[in-house]
Amino acid sequence: MPIPPGPFAGRTITDLARDLRDGHVTATELAGQALAAAEALGPALNAFVTVDAPGALAAARRADEELAAGADRGPLHGLPVAVKDLIMVAGLPATMGSRHFTAYVPDTDAACVTGLRRAGAVIVGKTTTHEFAYGPTGDRSANGPSRNPRDPARMSGGSSGGSAAAVAAGIVPLAIGTDTGGSVRIPAALCGVAGFKPAFGAIPADGVFPLSRSYDHVGVLAGGAEDCLIAYRRLAADVPGEAGDAGDAGDAGGSVGWIDPIAMYGGDPRVTRAVRAVLEADEEVRLPEGFVQEVRETYVAVQSCETAAVHAERLRRAPELFDPAVLERLRVAAQVPGWRYVRALEARQRLAGVVDVLFGGHDVLAMPTVPIVAPLVDEREFALDGRAVEVRPALLALTSPWNVLGLPALTVPAGLVDGLPVGLQLVCRPGDEPRLFATAARLTPVTVL
Amino acid sequence: MPIPPGPFAGRTITDLARDLRDGHVTATELAGQALAAAEALGPALNAFVTVDAPGALAAARRADEELAAGADRGPLHGLPVAVKDLIMVAGLPATMGSRHFTAYVPDTDAACVTGLRRAGAVIVGKTTTHEFAYGPTGDRSANGPSRNPRDPARMSGGSSGGSAAAVAAGIVPLAIGTDTGGSVRIPAALCGVAGFKPAFGAIPADGVFPLSRSYDHVGVLAGGAEDCLIAYRRLAADVPGEAGDAGDAGDAGGSVGWIDPIAMYGGDPRVTRAVRAVLEADEEVRLPEGFVQEVRETYVAVQSCETAAVHAERLRRAPELFDPAVLERLRVAAQVPGWRYVRALEARQRLAGVVDVLFGGHDVLAMPTVPIVAPLVDEREFALDGRAVEVRPALLALTSPWNVLGLPALTVPAGLVDGLPVGLQLVCRPGDEPRLFATAARLTPVTVL
Repeated sequence: MPIPPGPFAGRTITDLARDLRDGHVTATELAGQALAAAEALGPALNAFVTVDAPGALAAARRADEELAAGADRGPLHGLPVAVKDLIMVAGLPATMGSRHFTAYVPDTDAACVTGLRRAGAVIVGKTTTHEFAYGPTGDRSANGPSRNPRDPARMSGGSSGGSAAAVAAGIVPLAIGTDTGGSVRIPAALCGVAGFKPAFGAIPADGVFPLSRSYDHVGVLAGGAEDCLIAYRRLAADVPGEAGDAGDAGDAGGSVGWIDPIAMYGGDPRVTRAVRAVLEADEEVRLPEGFVQEVRETYVAVQSCETAAVHAERLRRAPELFDPAVLERLRVAAQVPGWRYVRALEARQRLAGVVDVLFGGHDVLAMPTVPIVAPLVDEREFALDGRAVEVRPALLALTSPWNVLGLPALTVPAGLVDGLPVGLQLVCRPGDEPRLFATAARLTPVTVL
Repeated sequence: MPIPPGPFAGRTITDLARDLRDGHVTATELAGQALAAAEALGPALNAFVTVDAPGALAAARRADEELAAGADRGPLHGLPVAVKDLIMVAGLPATMGSRHFTAYVPDTDAACVTGLRRAGAVIVGKTTTHEFAYGPTGDRSANGPSRNPRDPARMSGGSSGGSAAAVAAGIVPLAIGTDTGGSVRIPAALCGVAGFKPAFGAIPADGVFPLSRSYDHVGVLAGGAEDCLIAYRRLAADVPGEAGDAGDAGDAGGSVGWIDPIAMYGGDPRVTRAVRAVLEADEEVRLPEGFVQEVRETYVAVQSCETAAVHAERLRRAPELFDPAVLERLRVAAQVPGWRYVRALEARQRLAGVVDVLFGGHDVLAMPTVPIVAPLVDEREFALDGRAVEVRPALLALTSPWNVLGLPALTVPAGLVDGLPVGLQLVCRPGDEPRLFATAARLTPVTVL
């Protein structure tokens, strides 16, 4: 039932970069493999909206020529990469997963795409996004749902569902996504890959179609944490700890506090057990009184108002072009009164003030990324131990707080439950990214693909 | 019909400071005069909510002792001053003009009150404010309307109505107010005194009960512009141009662009003529296309949402304690959707970007402060040349744009229409305050009281 692994399954950026420089493979060959896999696995996964064979092959040839001429752009040079279809790539259609943008072709690159090109990466195509990134399930999109490579009957998660599916299926070694409440980490966890949402603003969001500007983050998805770190370092405007290289194996990582997810959301206890098993026995952290509710209300109020502001004209002029479920959510969002937004901004200030209390002396907080395994495509509620679980709030419960606080958050594969991937989430304060990645590097190794 | 002039009518801060230092009068005598006038004129004007005779006399004695000992705190030392009842003075009731705060006595001073005390000023009492400062008419307050000294049947304007009435009637030479959409400048203009709303944040607003935090400014009211400048310099955290003293007579003032108020609001043409007459023949400035509507919508959306956020609990728990007209406005404000607030914040960014265009090469913009003369107390609509004029939007039309942009704005008396005062408003960019005051100093002298 799982999709057969593509050419990049189990290959790290470091491996591929070595092979390229050793002459075992060319960037043109890597691009060809990615394009062929996108073609072959495309129908089953629906990971791509647009595959750009001519553009990718031209970029790959340039990458080969540069390498041959000794102009080495670093670890991403010549590697195939996929870009979420919410992010502008000059000359390629950008649908935002919506029928509102069926014929839109931007003429400039998003800042992160400029960063990819500067790093020599080869853009092979645009990946499926939940419509306007407004949903964590990845199954409401003008070009249909992206699907989970472990089981295509199940959702990839979203909104960066195509990016996660493309990496998990081994079509590309790296993909770019956006994360407003978990949209990088949720599909990464459900599909069994790593995903990193940096600190707010660390990778510039210019040229990304907005969902909720206060929370929109650009992030990276790859097979493992180390590859996320490599890509992040190439794309971030200013990476703390770059010089010290503390994110590499030399550092034992930071002190880790475990958050029992039951404090945030009552999910599947088997997920909690699986995730906890890959950590050393770390101390448990208790969340400050009222934190969970305040952060959730803040998330919902700010996101609702900002998203409704983005779409106000479309809601008035052409509501019928929205997916019905997205339209209904937008209409609710448009009703949230402004005073709640004002209060939410005040609450966010307060919450920022308790971050140090939250970490309770630890460098890194750990918890599951998502408290359930991937539901079926289109499933919105299911029974778990006799309780009804609403899919959307369950998916977002453990990831969205770190968007409200703008904290760096990484998900890494943490095993399987019922044959479906689960993710461990590690969160740190801005500036502590090296410790975050060093912590990931010392985890009990887990392979799920 | 006008109220007879009190002891400080026509007296400048400079005169009074000289008299004090020459031994012609003591601070205790000045305080006694102010207290007696507040007592005598109180019933007719309702300018004061609280008169603090013991506190004022004690402060005045200290001021006299300090001066006698050679400890001179500068031009405000020993001068009586009145403080709007929205601003916290330790140990004195603060009603905010509302039945929600009948028994509230703060135990710390607002930052601007600390500034007054440091400057040696003598606080004689708290002045009437429109309920929660939420209205420019000054006639909706738990302790009744403040009245216009030129004609007590007419409104003082608001929300700092008591401060304006107290200065205009000569009860005090100086008063402090707050200005969120014109609440210093409107009553100053309608009562025939000067009022200065500094740049946003120039006088700290800590310890002021909020109306709309993005727009709340602390300002000063006095007989003339020079006295406003003196008080502003003592209260501002950081006054540009202080060292150069360019605000004094030595400078001829900046180049002035006239804004025909018809572009912003169709008011009383006699007001426009009277105001224009006190200016030299300056060039006319055309407002950028769409500016007026965008700034107005921005003002209303931001203020509505922020004000509703301040009062959400009171609206839910004890709506009956609000004045009915204030309650109705708050209920409307609480309905403004959050996406409009988000849009308004974006618009404010855009508007800040057109400020230089707006000034069109000039240093100072000039226009009437209020496009009508003081309406009757409680009047909400009246006929003018056969047109219906709604009082509230008319009062706010020419002042609120400068709150949205956070620009320094001064009103000075500019004559009488129908025997009622009108004001000339001068607006500049932050940092150009010396030019603003120099411009005011070179105007055709006008005495209205």
